Formats: sequence, C-alpha cells, structure tokens
Amino acid sequence: MKTPTPAHAFVVDGNLDLVPRFKEQGYDAESVRKRREWLEEKLGIELPLVGQCAIPTEEMRGNIESPIGAAQMPLGLAGPLLVNGMHAQGTFYVPLATTEGALVRSYERGMVMLTRAGGVAVRVAVDQNVVSPIFRFDSVEEAAAFHAIVPDHFEEFRKAAESTTRHGRLKRVEPRASGRAVIVNFYYHTADAQGMNMIVKATEHACQWAIDAGLAPRFKVFSGLSSEKRASGFLLTGAKGKTVVAGARVAADILESYMHLTPRQVVEVWHDSVIGHLQANAIGFNAHYANGLAAMFIALGQDVANIANAAVGITDYELTSEGDLYASVTLPSLTVATIGGGTGLGTSRECLRMLGCTGAGHAAKLAEIVAATLLAGELSMAAAIGSGEFVSAHETYGRNRPKA
Amino acid sequence: MKTPTPAHAFVVDGNLDLVPRFKEQGYDAESVRKRREWLEEKLGIELPLVGQCAIPTEEMRGNIESPIGAAQMPLGLAGPLLVNGMHAQGTFYVPLATTEGALVRSYERGMVMLTRAGGVAVRVAVDQNVVSPIFRFDSVEEAAAFHAIVPDHFEEFRKAAESTTRHGRLKRVEPRASGRAVIVNFYYHTADAQGMNMIVKATEHACQWAIDAGLAPRFKVFSGLSSEKRASGFLLTGAKGKTVVAGARVAADILESYMHLTPRQVVEVWHDSVIGHLQANAIGFNAHYANGLAAMFIALGQDVANIANAAVGITDYELTSEGDLYASVTLPSLTVATIGGGTGLGTSRECLRMLGCTGAGHAAKLAEIVAATLLAGELSMAAAIGSGEFVSAHETYGRNRPKA
Amino acid sequence: MKTPTPAHAFVVDGNLDLVPRFKEQGYDAESVRKRREWLEEKLGIELPLVGQCAIPTEEMRGNIESPIGAAQMPLGLAGPLLVNGMHAQGTFYVPLATTEGALVRSYERGMVMLTRAGGVAVRVAVDQNVVSPIFRFDSVEEAAAFHAIVPDHFEEFRKAAESTTRHGRLKRVEPRASGRAVIVNFYYHTADAQGMNMIVKATEHACQWAIDAGLAPRFKVFSGLSSEKRASGFLLTGAKGKTVVAGARVAADILESYMHLTPRQVVEVWHDSVIGHLQANAIGFNAHYANGLAAMFIALGQDVANIANAAVGITDYELTSEGDLYASVTLPSLTVATIGGGTGLGTSRECLRMLGCTGAGHAAKLAEIVAATLLAGELSMAAAIGSGEFVSAHETYGRNRPKA
Amino acid sequence: MKTPTPAHAFVVDGNLDLVPRFKEQGYDAESVRKRREWLEEKLGIELPLVGQCAIPTEEMRGNIESPIGAAQMPLGLAGPLLVNGMHAQGTFYVPLATTEGALVRSYERGMVMLTRAGGVAVRVAVDQNVVSPIFRFDSVEEAAAFHAIVPDHFEEFRKAAESTTRHGRLKRVEPRASGRAVIVNFYYHTADAQGMNMIVKATEHACQWAIDAGLAPRFKVFSGLSSEKRASGFLLTGAKGKTVVAGARVAADILESYMHLTPRQVVEVWHDSVIGHLQANAIGFNAHYANGLAAMFIALGQDVANIANAAVGITDYELTSEGDLYASVTLPSLTVATIGGGTGLGTSRECLRMLGCTGAGHAAKLAEIVAATLLAGELSMAAAIGSGEFVSAHETYGRNRPKA
Repeated sequence: MKTPTPAHAFVVDGNLDLVPRFKEQGYDAESVRKRREWLEEKLGIELPLVGQCAIPTEEMRGNIESPIGAAQMPLGLAGPLLVNGMHAQGTFYVPLATTEGALVRSYERGMVMLTRAGGVAVRVAVDQNVVSPIFRFDSVEEAAAFHAIVPDHFEEFRKAAESTTRHGRLKRVEPRASGRAVIVNFYYHTADAQGMNMIVKATEHACQWAIDAGLAPRFKVFSGLSSEKRASGFLLTGAKGKTVVAGARVAADILESYMHLTPRQVVEVWHDSVIGHLQANAIGFNAHYANGLAAMFIALGQDVANIANAAVGITDYELTSEGDLYASVTLPSLTVATIGGGTGLGTSRECLRMLGCTGAGHAAKLAEIVAATLLAGELSMAAAIGSGEFVSAHETYGRNRPKA
Repeated sequence: MKTPTPAHAFVVDGNLDLVPRFKEQGYDAESVRKRREWLEEKLGIELPLVGQCAIPTEEMRGNIESPIGAAQMPLGLAGPLLVNGMHAQGTFYVPLATTEGALVRSYERGMVMLTRAGGVAVRVAVDQNVVSPIFRFDSVEEAAAFHAIVPDHFEEFRKAAESTTRHGRLKRVEPRASGRAVIVNFYYHTADAQGMNMIVKATEHACQWAIDAGLAPRFKVFSGLSSEKRASGFLLTGAKGKTVVAGARVAADILESYMHLTPRQVVEVWHDSVIGHLQANAIGFNAHYANGLAAMFIALGQDVANIANAAVGITDYELTSEGDLYASVTLPSLTVATIGGGTGLGTSRECLRMLGCTGAGHAAKLAEIVAATLLAGELSMAAAIGSGEFVSAHETYGRNRPKA
Repeated sequence: MKTPTPAHAFVVDGNLDLVPRFKEQGYDAESVRKRREWLEEKLGIELPLVGQCAIPTEEMRGNIESPIGAAQMPLGLAGPLLVNGMHAQGTFYVPLATTEGALVRSYERGMVMLTRAGGVAVRVAVDQNVVSPIFRFDSVEEAAAFHAIVPDHFEEFRKAAESTTRHGRLKRVEPRASGRAVIVNFYYHTADAQGMNMIVKATEHACQWAIDAGLAPRFKVFSGLSSEKRASGFLLTGAKGKTVVAGARVAADILESYMHLTPRQVVEVWHDSVIGHLQANAIGFNAHYANGLAAMFIALGQDVANIANAAVGITDYELTSEGDLYASVTLPSLTVATIGGGTGLGTSRECLRMLGCTGAGHAAKLAEIVAATLLAGELSMAAAIGSGEFVSAHETYGRNRPKA
Repeated sequence: MKTPTPAHAFVVDGNLDLVPRFKEQGYDAESVRKRREWLEEKLGIELPLVGQCAIPTEEMRGNIESPIGAAQMPLGLAGPLLVNGMHAQGTFYVPLATTEGALVRSYERGMVMLTRAGGVAVRVAVDQNVVSPIFRFDSVEEAAAFHAIVPDHFEEFRKAAESTTRHGRLKRVEPRASGRAVIVNFYYHTADAQGMNMIVKATEHACQWAIDAGLAPRFKVFSGLSSEKRASGFLLTGAKGKTVVAGARVAADILESYMHLTPRQVVEVWHDSVIGHLQANAIGFNAHYANGLAAMFIALGQDVANIANAAVGITDYELTSEGDLYASVTLPSLTVATIGGGTGLGTSRECLRMLGCTGAGHAAKLAEIVAATLLAGELSMAAAIGSGEFVSAHETYGRNRPKA
C-alpha cells in the first residue's frame, strides 16, 4: 500500500468515531472480525450471519473498503435456455440472485418456452465503452476551432490513451459542440472488462496530452454525457458496453401451451404498454429488464449499479405472416465483464463457471446469455399481463408479503 | 402448496432437462443440496461456496424458486453519518455491499465531512406508490365519458381496492386521457412495505369492480405508465415510493479540508455536468445515485431492480451568500421497505438492524438514511471530479482491474 | 402610453443606429411607412410587398413593436371535415397557411376520407393552463415546511391571484419538492384566451401574497417546469392548455379506396415508427402534428411559438375486431384561443370566422377542429409512408425545390 | 401538370362538397378568387382581407394547394445586431412576424445590449440533414448481418442516392440495431436548401438499390428516428440541419445598464430554470427559442413546422473570472434555407433581402443570424425573470389581452 492518497486524507482524530481501518487497511480475517465486533459493541447488536463469509477477506482488497463480512442473497436456478449466439451456443442454466418471489419461476417459464420454440438467436452488434470529457474555452470561437480539429488528432489521442493500458483500445473520438465548451466522446474497445476505471485513466491521459499540446486550456474528465450508471437517451445510440439483440420466433401453439394466450394478444399487450411508456416519457420500452439484470448482476459479480444504464432498451413483438410471434430485445448499452471487478470473487466466480464464462474471452458470450435471459423474462411478463395471471402467480409464489 | 397455477403449468416431461423441483417445490436443505448437485454433475463443476449459505433454506420460500444456495458480496461499513431527519435522528454506520473498489471509501469521505459540517437534514415530502391500469373502450366518446366520471367513483374504487389488503390505503385516482383508452393512476399509501404485489392486487380488484358496474368493458392492470423498475419522466412527479429531500450546508473550510476544493469549484462541476446531462437527454441529474442505491439495496434486502426508478432524481449545489456550499439531493421515487420482500432474510435483517430499521414503522427512517447516504456519495464524487483526484483514488483503492 | 418601463429604458443616443420609434411608439400608418423607408434607405433595397398590409397599423399596437408592415403566407383551404365534437359539430373547411407543397392536399385527403367514414369524434378532457413559480429557502427543512402547507393556503392563493383578472380562475395548486426550493404549479382555467400573460400576472400576485404573509422569503415567477413553448415530458400530464382527443373508425374499404392500403398496413407503419421514436428518445409519438399546427396557428392568429408544446402528443392506430382501423390523436397540451393575442387581427379574424370561432365561447370548439385536422394529417402521412407514395406525391405537388 | 397521382385520386363526385380545384389545380388569380367566393357563399361570410394578397397566385404553385389568398401577420423590426460569424459579419436588422406583444421589444433589447457588448460570435459546427429508413428482416440474425455490412456499401448507397439530386451529397451512413430491423441514418449535405424532399427521394433510391442488390427484403423510408418536425433527444447529436453555436461576453456594467441585474443574478436564473427543466423532463434547456424561431421563420419563408426540431438546444450562462457574463446558445438542429420552400415568395424574399440572405450560398449566414437573434432573446428573457420586470413589461407592451 502506498502513501495515503487525498481520497482518505482527512484527519482521523477529533471527536468523531471513525470506522477502524487497522493495519494495511485491515483486510485480514482478524481485522475484519474486529471491525465487525467494534460495530456490534457500539450498537449493542449481534451480526452472526454477516460474519459467515465465503469470500476470503484478503481477496476483498481492491473490491471494497472497511469490510465486515458478506451480504447474502438467495440464489435460484432458471433454465434450460437454448441460446444460438455467435459466442454462446447451447443450453444454459442461469443463476439468479433475488428476493422477489415468482421472479425465478417467471424467467424459467420464458426460458423453457423459448427452448421448445427453437432457442434464442443473439448477436452483439456493437462492442464499446465511452468516456466523455469536457474541454472549456474562453469563447465560442476557440471552442469551435478545437471542435474542428479533434478528428485530425485521433492518432495522438490514441497513443496517449493507450499508453496507460494494455487492454483498452481507442476506436474513435467524436466532438460535440456545447457553447464555449466541447465535449469529446472517446470510444474504446475494452475487451472482457467493464473497463471504466481503465478508460477513464486513459482518457485523462489523452486529454492531458491535448492540454500540453496547447490545443485547449482545461478539461474535466467527466461531463456526464457518457451516462455511466444513469439512464439517458444517449445510451440508445449504443454508447456504453455491448449493443446486443436477442430474438426468437415462437409458434402460436407453443405460446398458447406455455403462456395461455395468442400471438395477437401479446402484440396487444405491447401496444397498450408502449402507449403507457410514451405517456410516462420513459426511455425505450421494456417490461422489467431491471429484474433480470439485477438477479444476474448480483449472482455474477457484475457492477450492479450498471443496471441504470443496462436496463435501457427496446422490447418488440410482431405478428408474423404465418400467425406466429416474433419477439426481440435490443439492449444498446449492456455493460458486462468476465474479468476485473467482482468477477473473480467467491460465489461470483462459481456462477460465472455455471455459464462457462470465467475469465478472458467470455464477455461477449455472457452478454448473449444475459440478452437471451431478458427476452425470456419479457415474454413471461407480457403473457402474465395479457392472460390476466399476474396477480394469481404472485399469490402462489410471492408469499413474502407482510404477515400482519 | 395449492394446485399448480398457470404460471408453472407447462408439462415437465418431454426431452427438456428441467431444473428439479422436488417435493413441495424443494425448499428443505436436502432438496437445495440435491438441486445444486444436479447442476454440478450436469456441468462437471463444483460449487462449494454457493452452498455456504447463511440463510435457512426453508425461509427462502416466497422469495425465490429453485434455490441452490446463496450469492455473496463483500460488505463494507461507511460512517459516521449524522442524520437530522424527522424519522432518522442520530449517527449511523451504513452497510454497503459492493465489489467496486473505492466506493465505500468515497461514501465514507462524504459522510465524515457532512457529519463534521453539522449533519444532513432530510425530509420525506410525499409517501405513496402507484399502479396504472389501462381501460380500453370502443371509441373516444366512451373513453371520454369514463374519464369524466372516474373521480366521482373514488369511494367505490377505494372500497374494492382496500377489501384485498390490510396495509394499503388508496389515496386518490387520476385519469389520463389516451386515445380511446383511459389510464387511471391509483395512488396508495403502502406503509412500510414496497407494496407492489399488494397494490397490484388491490387495483385489479378495483378495476374489476368498474367492469362489473358496467363503467368500462375491459382493462389491463399494467399500462406501463407507473414506471415500476424503469426510468421515466413520470417518476419526477413523485409517483412511486417516497419523495425524499436531503440537504446540508457545508462550510467552505470544511469542504476545503476534506475535499480539497472550494464551494465555487463544486458549483462549476455541477454546471459542466448538468450541461453533459442535458446533452445526453438524461432523466434528472446525478453523479452516481445508482452506486449507493445498489450497495444499500443489496445489503438491506431491498428489491434491487428498483434502482431503475429510485436512481431518478436531482442533485443540486449552490453557493450561499456567505460563500459556503449548500448541497441537496431530491429523490422523487425512492422505493424502500422494512417489511416484506427480502427484509427479513439472513444478512439483510442484520444490516437493517445496524440502522435500527427492522420491521414495521421504519420505512420512512430508512428512506431518510438512504437519501443522506446518497448526498454523501454525490459530494465525494463531485469533489473527486473537481479536484482531479478521481483517477488517483481509483488507482489506490480499485486494485481489482484485470491482471494482464 | 405611460412612462417608459425598464424593458426599453436603455439610452438611445450613442453611436448605435436604433430602429426609429417615432411618436407614441409609431403605430400610425405614416410612422410605419417611415420606419420601412428608413430601413430601405439604410440597406439600399426596396420592400414594396411588406408594405401591402391588410391589417390597419394602429390595430397592431399590443401585438408587435416597431412595425414595418406585414408578412404574407399563401393560404389554402382543406375540407370538408366532418367533426362530431361537444363544441364543434358539422362540416368545416380549414384554412391552412403554409409554403410546403403537398401539405394542404395531404390534409384534404385525410379530411375527405374521415368525412366519408362518418366523421371525427372529439372531446376536450382537460382545460387548464399552468404557471410554475419557484420558491427558494435557506434549507431543506424550511422548504419542506412550506411544501407541507401549500395546499392549506389554496383559498388565499386563489383570492390573491384572481384579484388581478376577470377571466382567469385558479383551480388548484400543487407543490413539488426540489432541494431547498419548492416549485408550485398554479393551474388555471383561462376561458377562451391562451392566457399566459394573464395568469403569470395573477401568479406573481399570489406568490407575493405568500412572501408578505411570511410563508417564504423569495420566489421567481418562472421555474421552467410549466414548459411554455418548450417540449417536455411534463406536458403529457395535461399541463398546458386543453387536453383534446380525436378519434375515428375508418372502414377497411374506405381506407383502401382513399389511401390504398389496409388497416393492418397502417398499424404496421405505426409499429415501425414507434420503434423509431423510441430509438430517438422522442417525446410522445406523431407523424407531423407540427405541420398542421403551424399552418392553422399562422392562419388563425394563434401564438405560433406554442407549436413547441402543442405538438407533444400521441397518435394511435388499432385494428378493430371487425378488421377496420381505429385512429386517434391525443393532444395533452393544445394551447388555442379565440380572444386576445392575434385573434382579432386582419386575416386571422377572417380565418376564425371561416370556422365559426370568433370571440368568446369558442376556444373549445377551435380546439376540437384543430384536433380533428391533425388526425386527418396523421392518417394521410401514415398512408403515404405505408403505401410508398410519399415521394411521388411530393414530386407532383411540391415543385418548390431549388431550380438548379 | 402530370396525371393525377394516387395522393389525390379519390373520386370527387358523391355527396361531398369538395373544395373546387379548377383547371390545372386553379392557381390563376381568377380561380383563386372563385375558390374564395365559393367559400364566402357557402358560409355566408366575407373575406376581403384574405384576398388582399401580395404574392402572385401563380407563384404559389408548388407551395400550397387550393389557395384562396394569403394570411397576414404583423411584421416588426429588431436591431441593430452585430454578428461576428464566419458567414454573417456586420450589423443586422431582423424582421420578426408575430402577434405577441413585447416580443420584438424584448429581442431588440437583447440585440442592442449584445451589440454594445461587442457583438455575437457565431460558428456553424456541423451542417447536415438526415433521413432514417428502416429495413425489416425475418430474424435477428439476418438483421445483424445487414447491420455489419452497411458501412461497406457506402459507395453504392452514395451513387444511388446522388443520382436523384444535383444538390444533395451523402456524407455517411450509420446503422442502428433494432430487433429484427435495422434503421440506417443517411446523413447528407443539402447546401442551401432545407432539403427534406430532396434527400427523402435520394434515400428511397438508395434503399431501393439495397433491395435490388438482395441485401434486404423490404424497407420504409421513414422510421421516425430522424425527428423531422418533432422534438427528440436524438436531435442533440446534431442530427438535423446546422449545429450552430452563438456566444458573447457581456461586461457587468453593460448588463446592469441594459438589463438591471448582475451577471451573478443571470446565472441564478439559469440555475433555477435548469432545475425546472430537469423537473419537467424537458429536452435541452432554453427560455423561449420558439418565440424567435417562429417570428423569423414566418417572416423569412422558412418551414415553420421545423420549429419543433429547431427549438431543441441548450442556453448557457457563466460567470467569468473577471465577473462578467458569458452567454451562449447551442442549436444542434437548426433547419434553415435560402433556396426552395417559401424562400422565393413575396414578403419572404423581401425579408431575406433585409438580411442579405437571398438565394444560393446564404444558408449558413442565415443560420448564424438566427442563432445570434435567439441569444438576444434568451438574455432579455432571463433578465426579465431575474429582475422581476417580466410582468410589468408585458403590461406596457402586451395590450392585446381580452377586453372584458
């Protein structure tokens, strides 16, 4: 551990009762236990379950600070899900961590039906991540001059950016005029990592090059345009992560047998719900991507806060000329990783293993499985609404409501 | 367990290898173990950590189906956080489950500074939840006639809705004209539960009353307008959950000492970032609510997918006439619960206990603590951007990036 | 004319060549002519057509400053349009001012078809206008206290507001929490006027009452929430002007005969276009409301800038169980007037007379005719897209493209 | 005139009283008069002013159908406005057609102040227009295959597109994945024309090439993504028309002298209003672009319905380190033309002549003048709000409110 950086350089004396750090930030099992006990004593409570931690505490370094144990969430299994992707091919059983009763059963229902229907086709259309620094100038004229030359300096930006990373690749830069400022979108390929830390650092380096070269007087590495962990219209341009599309043709009789309604009824649910989304001024259209994303992201060691951007997308249903249903989900900004972040930790690693998605070379595969899973969830929810079975299903499975 | 409901009534024979259900859906420890072993054998892998489950498997019934164990995530502690709310009063240590390095330290930094600055004032301005069924008619004329009389029938709607629940209270109904349909927002008070299952059931009952009374020919209980687990502009009207505002005045010297920048610099970060958000066509404005929400929701047994709606809000910074900073977060649709859902399970219950938020009567208190925590995170992030320390902080703490 | 107000109190000497004001602001014919000649001489050009003004220049006072004549736009006639509204009943011929070739013919085609199909049903569901002042406080606590009591003071707000106007009626006030500020929506009924000046003045008075009563320390009468002359999601709540719905059932054979496509094809165009709108993160969904609104607003002396809010809405198409088409438009924020503004001037008054909409008591009627007209335009455009005739129609009628 | 196209091929007999077309669609003065008289007789009213038309009726062909005369709107003059653009350089007097009292005076105030402050710098950052056809496939796999090869066929698309036009230039094509469809943005340079008819025709041709080449089975030339005459987030990407930025530094004493408030107060108005816009879920941020756009577009023969897209943008105010104000407007999708459309007609041509913007080679100049004008309007409005003079100014100038 190096010298404390500014991020924690506040004075620890005074009358505040700070959380104990212990030696080397306290990641050994003893320190973790003592920190937990410090809290138990302070509050006069006991925390036996938090201490039952399957992740070796030393491995938590780099993923969390001031650890006191682990949070646990029930883990269920949904499948089989037949995926016909470019990267994911075959039948999968998907681990879902949730406390929402009926969720696993609902996704399972969609998966089984899709598998019977021939499986889910999935394609990754775009694979990138973006950082959007803002350069500020003293006048509109200077900003415009910079705006005009940004593309010409791509090679210098690229060299400066890539000098900081072995994995990130700068693909292109796009300037956006904004008053006397210019926001520049730096688009990267980040391989199998979510990669934000990597590309923020690379971008900072590239921006600093521009400052040193006299192209601009000052910058901030974040403008907010990139929409990391936020919902925005910009994400629909395929800005962040992988743009993934999953689709399936479901024969009318299969739909009827599993979901108890006709293709036309599903299209009607879509119609009514699109109207509702338009009335809500929602971004995109979906029934409940967030449910599937949360359950998978928690299980699989993904950055769970990325739900905010990954849940932006569009679900579509069409009646085919043969009277069947064609269902699809388009996910423009799906941020998943198989290396870095929480992907190597404890149960996350085991869950990634269930999908054959551990380590380098598997992020696109994981993205395809996630998209196929979300399609299953969308279909199941649309059917529950259309057939009027939503409430009864939750009555049966979701017994977790308050007792009295 | 009653007769199988439609939600899982598909035939389990055939050539698909379904996940084993076992007796009574298989929640006993033996069934959970056998289900896990079934998967291990099928995939030829081992899942020892998934099996180390601190939650008694029988207690999972109603929260998950086909359980195979538990997912674990590192749990860290951030504080002290002094909260001056109407419901939460005093100093708190907040459990955060995350795998994003530097996150806990970042929130802690904000909390300590806010505590030194005198604490965070928090108020719950609105407390409601909403379901938005759609009634379809054969013509615009009929829809308009229904639209006009909806308010007159509030009492009947209320009686029908409340006949299904002991906790939900229907507060008002608001019709919205939409072609030859009418969407009606049913606003409820759901006490300490997130309450969606409860109020969806109640609303279905109320809608059925309208059908039986001959007021409308047909309805669907979901139109999509309510924006459950989705980001939308509608949420800014305070539609879902609690509308909570947290604010604090931070003296310039305290800000400088903890964050290494001036109030004016924070306001400048806000300015640049607002421009970026406008350019992105984002909903609301915030730096990273989703990070704090995800970390708390996972730790505290909340419905994690609700991040999608809860992360909609507005962070504001102002320079006071005395040269200090006034910082605030406005969260129009914060959905939290202290009863129902995952709140009673294993580590979640322990984490709620850390905050004194277990059981009935504590949801508003929890909402206030969440809002205060998010304010701490916003300030810390804004400062990291403004002072240029974002990358260096992540270099120090976020050692979880891919090895090579 | 009273003492010069601050709005034009800058010093007119100096070296700037200001536009001549002349005596009493120069609305007499002589002054208008001299002002025009001043410009002609200055620029060395001639402006004979601008001077051919059918509006008596003295009547322009209150509608424009520094007049030099009139702008003219071609005026066409589209109809017959059979309207079955609550206020508009019968067949109308609609004046459209435009320079976009094919526009009048396109609307006419839709109107004739709708008339043959039995006419357009129209209903005004909501009739209001809104001003959204912002009250700022020193802390979240004080703002929350004000937020809580706003509804209790409705009667005082009403009295103060209505003391300034004989036409505006304050219907309700709705506070919205926003950091240490509170935005309050003041909803009015403005009868047959667009009414913004009227209700802004009334609201300023009401806010001042709150200041004088010690309820709040300061306010600004505009917060931007009201979305006057801007597109926003808020408008979908029926915030501004009249919420109007127009719908029609079009038999398949009539559609085929006039539009050369089937109801199913129209629904398919809708489907594809909704996807495009979602991809664009548009507000609402429509083909080209702005065309019809612009053409009518210019002809009818409406405030043309209100297109920005009035063009927010949702067009819907459904296939009926009999195989016909049900088409509708929902316009949540249609701002039209028959008194005040430009409604009494020259050709505007004549155009209003064509619709039987001059003077008090006719705004709702005008709103219904506008909505029916927009429906005609939507259908004609959807059909042109679906039948592939869009380009050929513009080739025939739109000969206004650059010559070479 | 060629054979009637399908667009008006409905049968004109029957019992409907159609608007008379007369010989060759009736553009001669006699036919126009007779059409007007037909209406007068039918309605029992007189329309003397509508007939006072300064535009030779024969010239209306291609701009309107079934003409009956002209609509007139008062025309005022605002200036001087000093513009320091790349295309517009010098002092301008801007013609504004409006019936909103105080509007001209308000813009004039801003113009005079900006001129005193040294003028407005303006730059056109992007100059393009877009059409967004949608290609539909039978499966996600086929759509993905097409998505992948679109860029490879740019040259063929370009040739096919440009074969239909002498002015439009295809600059690039960008595919967007959307379920089993692919939307392709065709970006053009349209020189001095608004150009939609031109590039829609070109795009239809290019798409047809793709069909003929077997790349896709079917398409529709409009998907809605392009946001022609609609507000959307997509427009912020600089999608339609010219992306123009105008900015000016206003010394504190000049601001105070003309607007009666300090730079800090203007920034405070901005702050409050941005919060209001975020609360409204508006697109971008501005005070009233639509007012200036409407007034100029009507006067200058622009396509007035384009206000819906052109009014999307961002106004920004910053306090400089010297204590002055830096103000700017960013207009990502400003659609203006100096050839085609209504630019050659009657008073429009004269108004364009006032700005030295008639004919080819002047669209960029016009765009710069429009942007500078909008900046003047923004400043004047912000000042009126900040100084509390809004109501009093409208009391003085806007005497057009209902009489009793």
